[in-house]
Amino acid sequence: MENNPLFIRDSVELSDSNDRVIIIDQTKLPGELVLKELTDCEHFYEAIKRLEVRGAPAIGVAAAFGAAVSLKNSLFTTREEFKQSFYSILKRLGSARPTAVNLSWALDRMAKRFVIALDSGCSESDVIDLLIDEAVMIKEEDIAMCYSISERGLSLLQPGMGIMTQCNAGHLAVSRYGTALGPVHLGNQKGYAFKVYTNETRPLLQGARLTAYELQETNCDVTLICDNMAGMVMSQGKIDAVLAGCDRIAANGDVANKIGTLPLAILASHYKIPFYILGPSSTIDENIESGDKIIIEEREPEEVTEMWYSKRMAPANIKVYNPAFDVTPAKLITAIITDKGIFNPGEILKSLK
Amino acid sequence: MENNPLFIRDSVELSDSNDRVIIIDQTKLPGELVLKELTDCEHFYEAIKRLEVRGAPAIGVAAAFGAAVSLKNSLFTTREEFKQSFYSILKRLGSARPTAVNLSWALDRMAKRFVIALDSGCSESDVIDLLIDEAVMIKEEDIAMCYSISERGLSLLQPGMGIMTQCNAGHLAVSRYGTALGPVHLGNQKGYAFKVYTNETRPLLQGARLTAYELQETNCDVTLICDNMAGMVMSQGKIDAVLAGCDRIAANGDVANKIGTLPLAILASHYKIPFYILGPSSTIDENIESGDKIIIEEREPEEVTEMWYSKRMAPANIKVYNPAFDVTPAKLITAIITDKGIFNPGEILKSLK
Repeated sequence: MENNPLFIRDSVELSDSNDRVIIIDQTKLPGELVLKELTDCEHFYEAIKRLEVRGAPAIGVAAAFGAAVSLKNSLFTTREEFKQSFYSILKRLGSARPTAVNLSWALDRMAKRFVIALDSGCSESDVIDLLIDEAVMIKEEDIAMCYSISERGLSLLQPGMGIMTQCNAGHLAVSRYGTALGPVHLGNQKGYAFKVYTNETRPLLQGARLTAYELQETNCDVTLICDNMAGMVMSQGKIDAVLAGCDRIAANGDVANKIGTLPLAILASHYKIPFYILGPSSTIDENIESGDKIIIEEREPEEVTEMWYSKRMAPANIKVYNPAFDVTPAKLITAIITDKGIFNPGEILKSLK
Repeated sequence: MENNPLFIRDSVELSDSNDRVIIIDQTKLPGELVLKELTDCEHFYEAIKRLEVRGAPAIGVAAAFGAAVSLKNSLFTTREEFKQSFYSILKRLGSARPTAVNLSWALDRMAKRFVIALDSGCSESDVIDLLIDEAVMIKEEDIAMCYSISERGLSLLQPGMGIMTQCNAGHLAVSRYGTALGPVHLGNQKGYAFKVYTNETRPLLQGARLTAYELQETNCDVTLICDNMAGMVMSQGKIDAVLAGCDRIAANGDVANKIGTLPLAILASHYKIPFYILGPSSTIDENIESGDKIIIEEREPEEVTEMWYSKRMAPANIKVYNPAFDVTPAKLITAIITDKGIFNPGEILKSLK
């Protein structure tokens, strides 16, 4: 695998000197490409909390680097101070987005590495180097995972195909390539010349702001549409495959993902267009029997009625229903592509073996 | 039929003195209820051009009143000046939205009435009274047409039903009641207690701005959702019928309507929810064989990328596809309800007999 074959930098990058991390501030996209240097714990905390870094894998990577780099740049004289410093960093970073599974997963892993290094009698300096190595490994594993998904996904596609996607399960959300967008990036590097339609993805507009940006930056042929235009575009025969990410996969193959995924699956089924879900095996939750058991987060009405707008676009006090995710039944999914293979949704548990 | 049983005033109303028209300025909704008095031709021209009055039937009524009231308030001494004044009013009003069919239809009708009255030797004052009467009749006919659609539509619904709609084919768009929303208003007056979900309808947000407003003002239980949430809401069993308007109906029953109608029809079909189209017989175009012959207007990218937003929400120079309408095939439509009856889409030409 080449180092970074995309035209855009990684959303989370460690400096050569190992003492700072450079992120793309995603809250400023697509208007400006703003790079931010993070060196101490509060920088990382704010970047994660304010969604300057977003996407589950990218958050995990940023937190892992945050733990190592913040410790490297902190002041301590005794071994006890060194330990206290590390654990207060972990606690602070963990509170930035308490419900983000990848955040606590990455910090737990860093904590284990720390304990092992300390117990084996390494110097503080060596412990820090080992933590940096661990964070680098987390990022490398994420890149390898995304690359694996991307290659498998690409094997299902043909050059010149029309592809539809929504939200942003792309390069910006992970360490490199992306999950749902991974095959598109990989294919475009290989000259596949996909024609991509990205749904804007209300209410938070990740499709318009982020997917449109990263595909345009990588010279992909991309067209932005409103979510309610997907049916029209499919009816015109412009779409050969739909690629979507996943937030959680139930044991029976039902998939919870960004709101708007379910209607795309139904439209794709109507027009006999393959509908693929792409994501890491870690999103499979074998303890959840089926999609109707997945609890769906409902978010604030103001995201729909006010956010982005120059003035409020709905009546005062209007009732709003704003679910962040929907659930697509397994029967509407052509295949689920993970880092372990391409699976029939009903047999998704095989991806855990 | 009662005079105005809705809680909100008509969007176009003639004053008791017949010398001015009061409109609801729809560009200020839902933030403010601004009433505007129109007395001379330029007022009417601006109101129509700037979409302060919108909706095909409402535009026709405003233009008819505009022709009569502007003439009443104009200065003339000779019969020749009187004639010149009227024809220059017609020309000016007709240029406000040249492609609006109802606008030219209403002005043609006023012109015919004018010629007949002049030819029969009426005084200028009597001619003006006859023109006012004609405009009142156009509005009354529109109310009767909407009421007929509303009653027929309501006959298909049951109290307490969950109803989904999009865009605004409501009271604000016509003289009273609305087409797609007519059965909802009429039902609510009769205590039907519908639970309505309105899709916001990107890019112009008529669902969020206008439908949410008029349903809230009439004390209807209304919930606003983003367009990509319709599948989720239907999957939860909350919707018993979908009501949509129509811009044009082809001879085979295919229907062109506001973008986003087609995916609602496909979702409704998937969940076995009745999908109804409601509109006047005048939208049937027997010269258009089928929906694929209907030319779809494509609008400016900026509606998607900039309009409403406090800052641009998509990358500069991004390619955008922005069709204003889509076409729903007859086979996905449960029934088409016109002022003439309830029709199987394949037999819609019977509505013209």
